[in-house]
Amino acid sequence: LKPAGESKKETCPVARSLAIVGDRWSLLILRNAFDGMRRFGEFQRDLGLSKSVLASRLQALVSNGVLQVVPGEDGSAYQQYELTKKGLGLFHVIVGLRQWGEAFLFAPREERSVLVERASGKPIGPLDLRSRAGKSLTPDDVEVRKVETPGRGTVR
Amino acid sequence: LKPAGESKKETCPVARSLAIVGDRWSLLILRNAFDGMRRFGEFQRDLGLSKSVLASRLQALVSNGVLQVVPGEDGSAYQQYELTKKGLGLFHVIVGLRQWGEAFLFAPREERSVLVERASGKPIGPLDLRSRAGKSLTPDDVEVRKVETPGRGTVR
Repeated sequence: LKPAGESKKETCPVARSLAIVGDRWSLLILRNAFDGMRRFGEFQRDLGLSKSVLASRLQALVSNGVLQVVPGEDGSAYQQYELTKKGLGLFHVIVGLRQWGEAFLFAPREERSVLVERASGKPIGPLDLRSRAGKSLTPDDVEVRKVETPGRGTVR
Repeated sequence: LKPAGESKKETCPVARSLAIVGDRWSLLILRNAFDGMRRFGEFQRDLGLSKSVLASRLQALVSNGVLQVVPGEDGSAYQQYELTKKGLGLFHVIVGLRQWGEAFLFAPREERSVLVERASGKPIGPLDLRSRAGKSLTPDDVEVRKVETPGRGTVR
């Protein structure tokens, strides 16, 4: 999208994030990782993508520190892919995509998977964004304060 | 990724969402729309993508009900693109991408844009996911209850 060198100057956090996880396969891999999936073969069967595409997406997620390679739990030769702390930080992004889908992309009684609290088995509440004072915020309540770069005008 | 007919049977809300907004350009367009951008030319200048790619992404977002075309505010011939209620529902996804980038992709004093509460001018708090009982939830606290389809085993 932009030359690699340019990305160092990218001052918008959304754009930086999308440079790493801004494609459907990567986000589906991450969804599966949050569901506990760890093996190459499992990802491949579930997603139905080619081995080479899966390998390149996993490699990129590993080199960006989102996933890490760990030895197979049972001492097998198969390596596994595990979310790092950085990868776990994408929890709200994946949940946000889920809750949007639930709200707008299913008919009222249409069958769908459900995210539940493990301890209670009950569905969870909606994501919430609050001000420092505790007020729940809508898109109209917020604005982006952009970085001013002298001589270049306002950039993100 | 899958034949269009298949998507009707997709029971994972994350996957349905990604079929609509699972690419970097669409999510950057939506970021800009949340920032108040409305015109084709503004999107094109800001994103630096080709007119044909931008036109096809906007068209897809309109046909999926995420954006709507409205007449230019000043009575000009230029049509504008506006978030629908469905599009506004992606607020937490865009904020989630922003907050992940802020937390993991910037050096401590590196310049970046900041999301603030319009009324107070103060930075906002982090996205939060809570149980029905009000407990803040981490990835370990939740699990996906998948749809069981007789004869096909567990599917998403």
